[in-house]
Amino acid sequence: QCNLTGWWENELGSRMQVSTVDSEGNFAGEYYTAVSSAQKPIKPSPLVGSQHLDKDGQCTFGFVVNWKFSDSTAVFVGQCFSGDNGDDVLQTSWLLREKVDSLHSDWKATR
Amino acid sequence: QCNLTGWWENELGSRMQVSTVDSEGNFAGEYYTAVSSAQKPIKPSPLVGSQHLDKDGQCTFGFVVNWKFSDSTAVFVGQCFSGDNGDDVLQTSWLLREKVDSLHSDWKATR
Amino acid sequence: QCNLTGWWENELGSRMQVSTVDSEGNFAGEYYTAVSSAQKPIKPSPLVGSQHLDKDGQCTFGFVVNWKFSDSTAVFVGQCFSGDNGDDVLQTSWLLREKVDSLHSDWKATR
Amino acid sequence: QCNLTGWWENELGSRMQVSTVDSEGNFAGEYYTAVSSAQKPIKPSPLVGSQHLDKDGQCTFGFVVNWKFSDSTAVFVGQCFSGDNGDDVLQTSWLLREKVDSLHSDWKATR
Repeated sequence: QCNLTGWWENELGSRMQVSTVDSEGNFAGEYYTAVSSAQKPIKPSPLVGSQHLDKDGQCTFGFVVNWKFSDSTAVFVGQCFSGDNGDDVLQTSWLLREKVDSLHSDWKATR
Repeated sequence: QCNLTGWWENELGSRMQVSTVDSEGNFAGEYYTAVSSAQKPIKPSPLVGSQHLDKDGQCTFGFVVNWKFSDSTAVFVGQCFSGDNGDDVLQTSWLLREKVDSLHSDWKATR
Repeated sequence: QCNLTGWWENELGSRMQVSTVDSEGNFAGEYYTAVSSAQKPIKPSPLVGSQHLDKDGQCTFGFVVNWKFSDSTAVFVGQCFSGDNGDDVLQTSWLLREKVDSLHSDWKATR
Repeated sequence: QCNLTGWWENELGSRMQVSTVDSEGNFAGEYYTAVSSAQKPIKPSPLVGSQHLDKDGQCTFGFVVNWKFSDSTAVFVGQCFSGDNGDDVLQTSWLLREKVDSLHSDWKATR
């Protein structure tokens, strides 16, 4: 069964720590990004999320990172897979919302 | 100041209720989707999320919906704006992760 | 039957002109964007694309805009629908690729 | 200088052949996908696209694939990079538009 509790690292060198997953599948943690499009120095940032608790260990999940060094927010959504060597692998996609001044600039706010 | 607490409705007729936002910007709630790509009947589904607490009322936010009628997960990211008539408007983008059997099908799992 | 030939305008005020669609569904045209994330003044930019030729007038299509005032490229993909008043409506999604210096910055190149 | 003419293969085993790139940066070719979400057997499908012609060989580009075994359309946008071993590497993102019956289903048409 896939449980997100623990440390994860992606191919860019960003890492996240997920603390206990509760009986509903909710969790919290900390995200240590290795990359940033913001001006200020990177800081560890809190995350909250939720996962399914499917017995087959291939559950989907999502989480939100509330960046502490910018006014942006990121969301990640993904699924857990068992890797060839028995390790769990997370496949994720993300969206990053940057704050914009007005609705007129909304078209470019998300990458 | 933008606070997500309350009821919101989108242009598809989906609605969400956000309960209290805590001092960190975290919140929980319920999502009532009007549309679905799943086979089973739609059910209200829990959401967890996080918002910035910028004084200007144009904060960015994100939330995760853990669908109760499917094994999929959705994430939304967006920003609050003041509408012309004084009402707050949320502009959001989303990703929906559907569960797939294997890494080979990962390419099509997210829409 | 939906044929993209002609002038189209989106909700941001951007306009495009599609010249003749050939028997394979290929077309060319010009895109006049109303919005830009580039530094330089906006210029009309050429587009090339392709559409299906389904008889029901609800064909999907895609096109590429090669921006003349930046080193970015945009792609649009969408579908034609008949609007309530008999007019055709195009629903599209897009990706904008901005040029980045190195693979290390690739993660943020697309919005 | 990056020129897309030739054969390219991605990590899923899909391949594309790009014929001559003209002096405007326009090109045509054929896409041989290794994966599909359609019911019918896969067939090679024509593509049209456009690339910048920057001297530094890191140009952005885009192309459209008009699937011959479905009524869907895909668009790809990306950038050329020089790999460690001197080979060119293309980094791309894509959107796939599936045909839907009505505007009501538009929300789920693109992945």
